[in-house]
Amino acid sequence: MSRDPDPAVIGSRVEDLDTPCLVLDLDKAERNLDAMARAFVGTHVSVRPHTKTHKSPRLALMQLQRGAIGVCCAKLGEAEVMAGSGITEILITTELAGPPKLRRLIGLARQTRVITVVDDAIAAEQISEAAVAAKLRVRCLVDLDIGTNRTGVAPGEPAIELALKVARMPGLDLVGLQGYEGHLQHVVEVDERRDQHGAAVSLLTQTAERLREMGLNTEIVSTAGTGTCNMAARHSAVTEVQPGSYVVMDTDYGRVHGIGFEHSLMVLSSVVSKRNNGVTVDAGFKALSIDSGPAVPKDLDAHYAPRGDEHGLVSFENGNPLAVGDRVSLIPSHCDTTINLHDQYYVTRGDRVVAIWPIATRGRLQ
Amino acid sequence: MSRDPDPAVIGSRVEDLDTPCLVLDLDKAERNLDAMARAFVGTHVSVRPHTKTHKSPRLALMQLQRGAIGVCCAKLGEAEVMAGSGITEILITTELAGPPKLRRLIGLARQTRVITVVDDAIAAEQISEAAVAAKLRVRCLVDLDIGTNRTGVAPGEPAIELALKVARMPGLDLVGLQGYEGHLQHVVEVDERRDQHGAAVSLLTQTAERLREMGLNTEIVSTAGTGTCNMAARHSAVTEVQPGSYVVMDTDYGRVHGIGFEHSLMVLSSVVSKRNNGVTVDAGFKALSIDSGPAVPKDLDAHYAPRGDEHGLVSFENGNPLAVGDRVSLIPSHCDTTINLHDQYYVTRGDRVVAIWPIATRGRLQ
Repeated sequence: MSRDPDPAVIGSRVEDLDTPCLVLDLDKAERNLDAMARAFVGTHVSVRPHTKTHKSPRLALMQLQRGAIGVCCAKLGEAEVMAGSGITEILITTELAGPPKLRRLIGLARQTRVITVVDDAIAAEQISEAAVAAKLRVRCLVDLDIGTNRTGVAPGEPAIELALKVARMPGLDLVGLQGYEGHLQHVVEVDERRDQHGAAVSLLTQTAERLREMGLNTEIVSTAGTGTCNMAARHSAVTEVQPGSYVVMDTDYGRVHGIGFEHSLMVLSSVVSKRNNGVTVDAGFKALSIDSGPAVPKDLDAHYAPRGDEHGLVSFENGNPLAVGDRVSLIPSHCDTTINLHDQYYVTRGDRVVAIWPIATRGRLQ
Repeated sequence: MSRDPDPAVIGSRVEDLDTPCLVLDLDKAERNLDAMARAFVGTHVSVRPHTKTHKSPRLALMQLQRGAIGVCCAKLGEAEVMAGSGITEILITTELAGPPKLRRLIGLARQTRVITVVDDAIAAEQISEAAVAAKLRVRCLVDLDIGTNRTGVAPGEPAIELALKVARMPGLDLVGLQGYEGHLQHVVEVDERRDQHGAAVSLLTQTAERLREMGLNTEIVSTAGTGTCNMAARHSAVTEVQPGSYVVMDTDYGRVHGIGFEHSLMVLSSVVSKRNNGVTVDAGFKALSIDSGPAVPKDLDAHYAPRGDEHGLVSFENGNPLAVGDRVSLIPSHCDTTINLHDQYYVTRGDRVVAIWPIATRGRLQ
């Protein structure tokens, strides 16, 4: 249950915001959006941005305005929110299981153009049965495991076998393949990433070509994230990429060479206590995720370390220039999981707050 | 923006819930609540449970019904929600900084009995000025650092000096001390924990006794968490304890000897993909916190490891008994930060859902 933000802060200085809060630098975010759109102009590859990162219909609409062909959602609940916000072309990139999900998928398919993914024949049959019962058709991609070992059927024969089954199932329209190389997004060196990416994507494109030869529909071959999407256009069978983090970036992607987007996201915190070795700020595990390590102080020669749920320690090599009440900006280590802790973006241009945008799919776990 | 839960699931079987979701076993939670209340009957120590863990006014009211003298909140925003739910005696256990917080603190003090903590004379002066301007009095504890090195002034002379200043500030009522030994809550062995606890709490109680001798008000000496509250009653100067996690427990506290509460909390997940080495379930970083390590599968001889934001791998030593759609219950490693990822508890007795309770202070970061 979020606190409704105070609209009176719009127009105020960023440093006057109550803390901790999530701040989005709109100038930088727009440059990131523009750069991604520009990168695929004149190529055979479309952009279908992943909204699991920003969780904002507003940012999704900005992506569509820049030529995105639709959006990705990780969860059915995210797709429901995006559909309610007027987005009409949605790929749900994770497998769905269980009767409640089937009922909701049908409800969603009645109101928007949705694509689901499958890696299991029995799960596909359940969707098929639900679609037939509802007298509608559900578009479907076969999800391939091209090295991440999380979801997806093995490329080659197992994928082809599943695709043939799905193509024959009533109520389902097989429209292609998905293969997301999540394990390669953060390979730091460009050459190493390109080599590994080429090998992984070949598993996807070779399977796609076999399906095409067999007369199956492969109009969609969806892959890649922020770390690899600029490499995907080199593969003729790839039709679209799914980058998400590029809009806001984080320190984990900041370490990856050759990406070239700006940090538009930060958590603003306040000093609440002076310590011998630095200061304690009011942002801990509940304001900044740590699955990719600790956040990094912005524009300060200092380190941040979480100190429990509500606090973090900002420590300095030499002396401590900060007093109680001073503000410290922190760049998240992982944007997706940090955004998911907050209810709204405080959107800024320069040093001023220009808008408050709800993080509308935050907590949409189902 | 949470999805409103479907009240039609009340009465259904737990295993039919959509996933991932947070499940609270009410029989176990009530036994935990009863056990904590019973432990302090006939002692000089009161229980002021910390609501930063459960984030639920409903559970807070159950604690008050069992004799708790009030509640603790970590954040002003949590206290605002608790006050709005009819709770009238609230200790905010963390230091507040900045003008927005001062304005809101005054607003809260106008409507309920609130206590704030300070470890800095300038911050205390700001609260004093705000209270004077509002023509009201704010109760105040001096927060001591008894070893956690997060917030708090040093015990002994620095604390006494600050207490004397606070006692003289207009608009403030010094009512005692807080000293929370967060660093000792998870010391596994009872003897070791008791020894370290005795040394830490002595810093608090000796300072309290000095203040008392000087005629200052020490009617509140607040300390301890789930790991140490059963040791706090041995110290005559301690007046109250602040346990939070005991209501629901987690695997991190489950490893600590001599606590004796039951795991009443779990995250229900579904198998979405079969893998060679186990199954992928639909609960990752966004459903289960990892600041205290990975969650633990319940009633299964298996391991859980997060596999990104939305997924986890459940692996078995011998074979894999699970199919797509099967449910897996996971015991959180850290209850506070996991509860903070969810919007509601699905409350159960036995195998049935009996209620849905909002996690009303989730996301109240400020």
